[in-house]
Amino acid sequence: MADAAVFDVIGTLFDREPARRSLVDLGAPPSAFEAWFQRLLHEAATVTLLDSYRPFKELAASALTTTLAQLGLDPSRTEPLDALAELDPYPEAAEALARLRDAGAAVVTLTNGSADSTRQLLNRGGLGELVDEIVSCDEVQRFKPHRAPYELALERVGRPATMIAAHGWDVLGARAAGLATIWVDREEQQWPFPLEAPARAADLAAAADLFLER
Amino acid sequence: MADAAVFDVIGTLFDREPARRSLVDLGAPPSAFEAWFQRLLHEAATVTLLDSYRPFKELAASALTTTLAQLGLDPSRTEPLDALAELDPYPEAAEALARLRDAGAAVVTLTNGSADSTRQLLNRGGLGELVDEIVSCDEVQRFKPHRAPYELALERVGRPATMIAAHGWDVLGARAAGLATIWVDREEQQWPFPLEAPARAADLAAAADLFLER
Repeated sequence: MADAAVFDVIGTLFDREPARRSLVDLGAPPSAFEAWFQRLLHEAATVTLLDSYRPFKELAASALTTTLAQLGLDPSRTEPLDALAELDPYPEAAEALARLRDAGAAVVTLTNGSADSTRQLLNRGGLGELVDEIVSCDEVQRFKPHRAPYELALERVGRPATMIAAHGWDVLGARAAGLATIWVDREEQQWPFPLEAPARAADLAAAADLFLER
Repeated sequence: MADAAVFDVIGTLFDREPARRSLVDLGAPPSAFEAWFQRLLHEAATVTLLDSYRPFKELAASALTTTLAQLGLDPSRTEPLDALAELDPYPEAAEALARLRDAGAAVVTLTNGSADSTRQLLNRGGLGELVDEIVSCDEVQRFKPHRAPYELALERVGRPATMIAAHGWDVLGARAAGLATIWVDREEQQWPFPLEAPARAADLAAAADLFLER
């Protein structure tokens, strides 16, 4: 039995470009998306550090309000939130997942988003049939990179697992929880931590290659 | 004996504008600063969630590398890091701190940065004589908003304390550790969390007013 391939969703399987464009359409520069998203991630880490919890969607909304206000834009606009529900998978995603399944791997998603919104994204993007398990941080009320969601994913698959993620912080969280890791480097390009860099892949096809070679 | 006023440093006592400008001088749009800084804060929260630690300055450097690469700029440039050492205090800072001390309050700084770099910033900005204690997250190897640094500050001052900070996450961390809080709202403008908003002040003079009225 092959190991499990555990994929992050937003930014890893799905290109965040429509959300970026939606902010630009409101008058923001392209880097405002990164400001919003990093603020959102920091909010998720903050509530987790405080042993508190709010759904990712609520944090995305409040972080967006502040980001828009800082840009001098109307803080009540919500189009970028809606765009998060309409992301498209990276073009090579379906084939990469199919290859992993054909090789006997379990294909799992592990996301800070909700299971419902993830299921909708996967089905809308044509990946629904290729994923064996959807695991959400909602279930443990702790966001990645807290170890609880990674441990839940390991428990759910019942075999060794490799986390495949486009975010350095996700790789570090998975590593600390005992998963192998592959970093898809196309979003961050340069390893963002002063800590040992992981195996890296340029896209999901290359990540599947790496996974299957091990 | 009046309570202690515990100030965050970067963005609260000191204006981050020179660091923002330094990134713009490298060819980045103004919102790239927010992308860098939020990434840096998320990296600090990440290592803290993983029971690990790297000095804030190292995280600032690695987060900057990724931010520059994402912008298509030379990732080896370090001017924005140098600019963090040359921030100026907000114009009303000295008078606000002096009023608090005259009223018998202990004036304390509590920062994710190191004690050394904070001391240099305070002395360079003419605030050194107005601060009774410099408390750094370095001492507990846990970054705010983890409760350990707030508890260290409370222990150090030995009396009730109010955290005065320009960042929602800092306000939430302080509140969870038992400090009163005042949020200086000029950087974020809109309260960034789907959680109860704190008392707010437009600047440090207004924050001192609020503190002294209590």
